[in-house]
Amino acid sequence: MPHEIRLTRRGTFAYVVALALLVLTSQGMFAQTDPLPSWNDGAVKKSIVDFVSRVTSQGGADFVSAEQRIATFDNDGTLWCEHPFYFQLAFAIDRVKAMAPDHPEWKTKQPFKGLLDNDMKALAASGKKGRLDIVTVTHTGMTTDEFARMVTDWTRTARHPRFNRPYTELVYQPMLELLAYLRANGFKTFIVSGGGIEFMRPWTEQVYGIPPEQVVGSSGVVKFQTGADSKPVLMKLAKIEFVDDGPGKPVGINRFIGRRPIFAFGNSDGDLQMLQWTTTGSGPRFAGLVHHTDAEREYAYDRQSKIGKLDKALDEAGTRGWTVVDMKRDWKTVFPAESKEK
Amino acid sequence: MPHEIRLTRRGTFAYVVALALLVLTSQGMFAQTDPLPSWNDGAVKKSIVDFVSRVTSQGGADFVSAEQRIATFDNDGTLWCEHPFYFQLAFAIDRVKAMAPDHPEWKTKQPFKGLLDNDMKALAASGKKGRLDIVTVTHTGMTTDEFARMVTDWTRTARHPRFNRPYTELVYQPMLELLAYLRANGFKTFIVSGGGIEFMRPWTEQVYGIPPEQVVGSSGVVKFQTGADSKPVLMKLAKIEFVDDGPGKPVGINRFIGRRPIFAFGNSDGDLQMLQWTTTGSGPRFAGLVHHTDAEREYAYDRQSKIGKLDKALDEAGTRGWTVVDMKRDWKTVFPAESKEK
Repeated sequence: MPHEIRLTRRGTFAYVVALALLVLTSQGMFAQTDPLPSWNDGAVKKSIVDFVSRVTSQGGADFVSAEQRIATFDNDGTLWCEHPFYFQLAFAIDRVKAMAPDHPEWKTKQPFKGLLDNDMKALAASGKKGRLDIVTVTHTGMTTDEFARMVTDWTRTARHPRFNRPYTELVYQPMLELLAYLRANGFKTFIVSGGGIEFMRPWTEQVYGIPPEQVVGSSGVVKFQTGADSKPVLMKLAKIEFVDDGPGKPVGINRFIGRRPIFAFGNSDGDLQMLQWTTTGSGPRFAGLVHHTDAEREYAYDRQSKIGKLDKALDEAGTRGWTVVDMKRDWKTVFPAESKEK
Repeated sequence: MPHEIRLTRRGTFAYVVALALLVLTSQGMFAQTDPLPSWNDGAVKKSIVDFVSRVTSQGGADFVSAEQRIATFDNDGTLWCEHPFYFQLAFAIDRVKAMAPDHPEWKTKQPFKGLLDNDMKALAASGKKGRLDIVTVTHTGMTTDEFARMVTDWTRTARHPRFNRPYTELVYQPMLELLAYLRANGFKTFIVSGGGIEFMRPWTEQVYGIPPEQVVGSSGVVKFQTGADSKPVLMKLAKIEFVDDGPGKPVGINRFIGRRPIFAFGNSDGDLQMLQWTTTGSGPRFAGLVHHTDAEREYAYDRQSKIGKLDKALDEAGTRGWTVVDMKRDWKTVFPAESKEK
């Protein structure tokens, strides 16, 4: 060993300690400065950080005042998982099963018979009318308060068939970080989902930090009337009011938010018009798509999928330069670590 | 002058200075501690301050967490003046007059003829159909962006016939203070109005500090389509979508906000159900009504008025102990001081 780099034992020890300190310190620094630790470094993460940096740089050409920093997110497949079927359908199925003892007639009546027998073919054969019947018996005929309690109870007890975790734990950790990162930079975050507005609101604040008044979704007609104890109630009626999907998303954004987002994220063709509406406003705009490419950690699907079909929007993302998240490549983790209290 | 209170000239000077300082300081202190300077002291002001104090006292029996502090306000007659007719009607009339040169057929066609001739009898005779025709030509057939520009232009140029001030200056100074006071105490303030949502949103942030996403109102159907430059637009169609009045107010609150207010203010029977919905929730609740009793500084009307009729809600306020503002008695000033740039 040449003289120049010979070290005493004490010197070696000091060197190792210094090195360890350096490593620990830089890790600490990295953890402090990286707002998106579950995103792998690369073009996607960079496009997000660059956009946020541009619109928040006071005096910069692309600065956007805080009240205009509206960010909208689809829910199913963008903030939480949507396979093997929409979680709201899982809720409806569980409700039918729970209600079945009071409905002996369902044993012989479709679509309920198919559902109770786990006969998915018969269920599918009942078509749109069948689905509507299931939604009607599970989502209407009760007050808004009663429905919210049913949803809350369900989120506490139901488990996803593959991951065996509560559905509200099957949210995407990288997206939770993105929501928090945007809010820390003065953005107001909204959900704009095809899912039922009353199905999401009971848990979005706790799970995403998004309060009920920032949730836009599909809805049924609700009626103000006097309840049994002569107190007013809002009854959920069996009539669709608004479908917040596809071209309905910009309409819902206009109705509920009243200004155009500068940042939007989706994952399917149902989000296409929201992304078009977001990106065709003047000034800096960001559009993102979650591409489900990870059959191992989650699911892999796009152009052929019955749930969360991503086809036209994927083409348009290419043409327009929208950011496409490749789940397998871009996400270090998919779901949050399991809570210990299970 | 007895010896005990004889003062030297220097002593007198010091005394006067001290007294002046004392007066100035206490005025300063008073201004700092009274969040509602345009409200006269009395039971009404006390009921507001007591309520806010109760729900914000951490550890107190009536403490309400900040995210539950939802406050909803009617607009016409509660936050701004609504006489001699709803300001949105004034906007519609001004629009018809501005559009008339392009519509020679209106010279002979009701309700436009009556409107252009200032023939209020003929206009009234055209009834509901006539009013709908006026709303249709002035509020539909353009994009949401175009309509917002029309409203903004109108608020800048139009003047109230009696007060000769821009309509957006005919807001109630005591209510502006109340909105700011609630927000300073962690409340989120919303408008819940029978007026058109797209008519209010262009100016509510500047005038009330209430952003578009916290404005609930009546709406027409809006359609997403491709504009002339192949960019997407939202077209306002001639079809009513939602009437946010009477029993529609709790429905609108549920739809847009998704939780029940703990504080609500109105001024007419159209607000009755909102106040019922607010006050029948559990925990501390506040309901207020503005009673227009001041013909000199504003207007005096209630049970017989065609605009802003206050009859059933006034009775119910008595029964239920809601707070009724007597404008003449309770408000030191009605409108903000006139701006100097006129």
